[in-house]
Amino acid sequence: MNEWKNYPMERLGALREECRRKYEGFKASGLKLDMSRGKPSPDVLDLSNGLLEAPASYICEDGTDARNYGTPTGIPECRRLFGELLGIDPDQIIVGNNASLQIMHDIVGRLYFFGTLGGKPWKDLEKVKFICPSPGYDRHFGVSGEYGAEMVTVPMTEDGPDMDAVEALAAEDEAVKGIWCVPLYSNPQGIVYSAETVERMAGMKTKAKDFRVFWDNAYGVHHIYEENCLADIMEAARRHGNEDRIYYFFSTSKITFPGGGIGMLAASPANIAEQQAHIDVQTIGYEKIAQLRAVNFLKSPENIKAHMWKVADILRPKFDIVIDTLERELGGTGLATWQRPKGGYFVSVDTLDGCAKAVVAKAAEAGTVLTDAGATFPYGKDPRDSNIRIAPTFPSEGELQQAMDLFCLCVKMASIDKFMDGRR
Amino acid sequence: MNEWKNYPMERLGALREECRRKYEGFKASGLKLDMSRGKPSPDVLDLSNGLLEAPASYICEDGTDARNYGTPTGIPECRRLFGELLGIDPDQIIVGNNASLQIMHDIVGRLYFFGTLGGKPWKDLEKVKFICPSPGYDRHFGVSGEYGAEMVTVPMTEDGPDMDAVEALAAEDEAVKGIWCVPLYSNPQGIVYSAETVERMAGMKTKAKDFRVFWDNAYGVHHIYEENCLADIMEAARRHGNEDRIYYFFSTSKITFPGGGIGMLAASPANIAEQQAHIDVQTIGYEKIAQLRAVNFLKSPENIKAHMWKVADILRPKFDIVIDTLERELGGTGLATWQRPKGGYFVSVDTLDGCAKAVVAKAAEAGTVLTDAGATFPYGKDPRDSNIRIAPTFPSEGELQQAMDLFCLCVKMASIDKFMDGRR
Repeated sequence: MNEWKNYPMERLGALREECRRKYEGFKASGLKLDMSRGKPSPDVLDLSNGLLEAPASYICEDGTDARNYGTPTGIPECRRLFGELLGIDPDQIIVGNNASLQIMHDIVGRLYFFGTLGGKPWKDLEKVKFICPSPGYDRHFGVSGEYGAEMVTVPMTEDGPDMDAVEALAAEDEAVKGIWCVPLYSNPQGIVYSAETVERMAGMKTKAKDFRVFWDNAYGVHHIYEENCLADIMEAARRHGNEDRIYYFFSTSKITFPGGGIGMLAASPANIAEQQAHIDVQTIGYEKIAQLRAVNFLKSPENIKAHMWKVADILRPKFDIVIDTLERELGGTGLATWQRPKGGYFVSVDTLDGCAKAVVAKAAEAGTVLTDAGATFPYGKDPRDSNIRIAPTFPSEGELQQAMDLFCLCVKMASIDKFMDGRR
Repeated sequence: MNEWKNYPMERLGALREECRRKYEGFKASGLKLDMSRGKPSPDVLDLSNGLLEAPASYICEDGTDARNYGTPTGIPECRRLFGELLGIDPDQIIVGNNASLQIMHDIVGRLYFFGTLGGKPWKDLEKVKFICPSPGYDRHFGVSGEYGAEMVTVPMTEDGPDMDAVEALAAEDEAVKGIWCVPLYSNPQGIVYSAETVERMAGMKTKAKDFRVFWDNAYGVHHIYEENCLADIMEAARRHGNEDRIYYFFSTSKITFPGGGIGMLAASPANIAEQQAHIDVQTIGYEKIAQLRAVNFLKSPENIKAHMWKVADILRPKFDIVIDTLERELGGTGLATWQRPKGGYFVSVDTLDGCAKAVVAKAAEAGTVLTDAGATFPYGKDPRDSNIRIAPTFPSEGELQQAMDLFCLCVKMASIDKFMDGRR
């Protein structure tokens, strides 16, 4: 087999020389690209420019003047639209401002300061642990880190987090209070949680009575190749008598405009009442005109899905470039592994252990900024220094092809350095 | 003198009968009015309908695409506009989403959980006290109440809070950590803090090194009769070496749309850096398109001032109705005191001790909901049960005249009850 780790030194040396020449070429080309975040490209944003137009009316269906104060749970037509789209009772939905991350952050803050449903405030506990399936979303880890939680890494499988590990942690340790989940098209691997994973998440025994699942369905309608379904965790949790366990988040940030989306919380009636009481102290109300614009533009679940297939038609060729280039340049070399994401916004690549930081540094030196190596793990520390999140959504196809050629080159260079240093 | 308290029983009895007849008339008229909050009327909101239109461009002056992620401190043109309007360095400004109350709330939460500039988190202190000049804004008191602060009432004078009392509390007690201020056109009295009050607030000695002034300039451009100026507390605090003491808040909620304004924090460079670091964990960014819309619509400080005179032209007759009716119906009776507000959104009336709750209840029974008696004091408890906040901005002039006639009638009825019960 022709895995590079078996190559003789001379061949590696020759390859290193060849790579270095190509690399110097890239540096000379003056490539300047930021692929560090999952940002949509202008042509995807253009699909939502209708959102900029004045709403047909500023009067909501319940007669509320969206320009004025009031309706702190969000306007009814927006709660209903999200409810129909996600199969959730609108009464269990609070529609907020533009960032669902803020809703998550604020809930974590309240769990620490006030506790939930009669439970002890987490700030008064000796220790609080959060389960962080990794690789995962750096901003989730940032929130639990902000409040001082000990973050416990759990590996991802093709069906979602390793549920044996999750169940063991939740069942045995009362300090384990929560878990971060991106259940559909996980960030960064694009994994779809299986029905069994969802069922186990909803039904598992937890030592902590106030264990909470932060269910961030950020990519709930972000199909790329075909439509994948996510099992209904709210229904499952109800069935298991654990309905208060789930905080369900959704947002239109990656449906319309990241800067101008609508964030949403769905939860049990008891959780919604508790959060609303805190929200009523925090704000007089959310931006209802933005909610009206969203409803006017998105219209119906069917229309949202049609819109997202237009988005997919722009993203699909980009994902293909990433996967095809990885296969062409690194296939069979044993230098990296990856999986074709089923949807979402990212491609996750694992280099040889100890090479990720070097790859990201080399790419940056040649003008392409990638997400920091390690960012996909708690504390920004990837124990194997091997995972890299590729965000192909923003660059043009031409830029992306260049960036991927450079990326694969950097993987080869870092790997050769590892082999040759290793043998000295 | 003909103060009612000196009237003989017979005359009071006759007046009571007369009032009761008129009151029954009001009940029969089926008046239905909510004057509980400071909401602008539709014709005021209409002045800002230009805000609904699509922005000329979604590209900010620094090249940022407002539709996408980025620029977490707010777009530069919006920070500059607020800076020019308020005389604050734009680098010391963070422009947020639609509610400055949320910025205040979140800062209080961070002071409790994280502390500020190396100080101990307030949650770890035995006691935290907030100075609450009263009558004041119920939502301010709601925030400090949410986090468990002990709220200490300080009386208001014609020049702002009683600074002798404020200075004594701040200087002597390390648990005294902050004060709520609405310095221009205070809520509810419409008082303008004098230059001396501002100077003393900025310069006073505080036992707590992390004492904070929550300077909510919510009505900073809300003149009604003539333009009143507010001394520059940021400059004064700098001069006294206390620049970290001030959190300065402003919002366009009552310039354009309450539901769709832009909130702002201004503070020292150290405070801004600290808050931004926390904000960067809480959200990926604020609604930049709304910020662009605000800049497009508001344009310049001069234009904002011109806009606010149009608002004043609508509000002025309403304030006149309130004051004129109070003077006509209650002048010289000794049953209530009030002052003509210099600007802002409210008129504050003090009934005889122990009558406010009764007045509000009687008005509600006849179809006019007023702000709860006591709401203008910490814990919703007015020790004298005498202060009532009148919010004349929402009703039409006709409705307002009816409501004020009813209000004065209720004051008379509650006062007569007090006199006659008192003499039995």
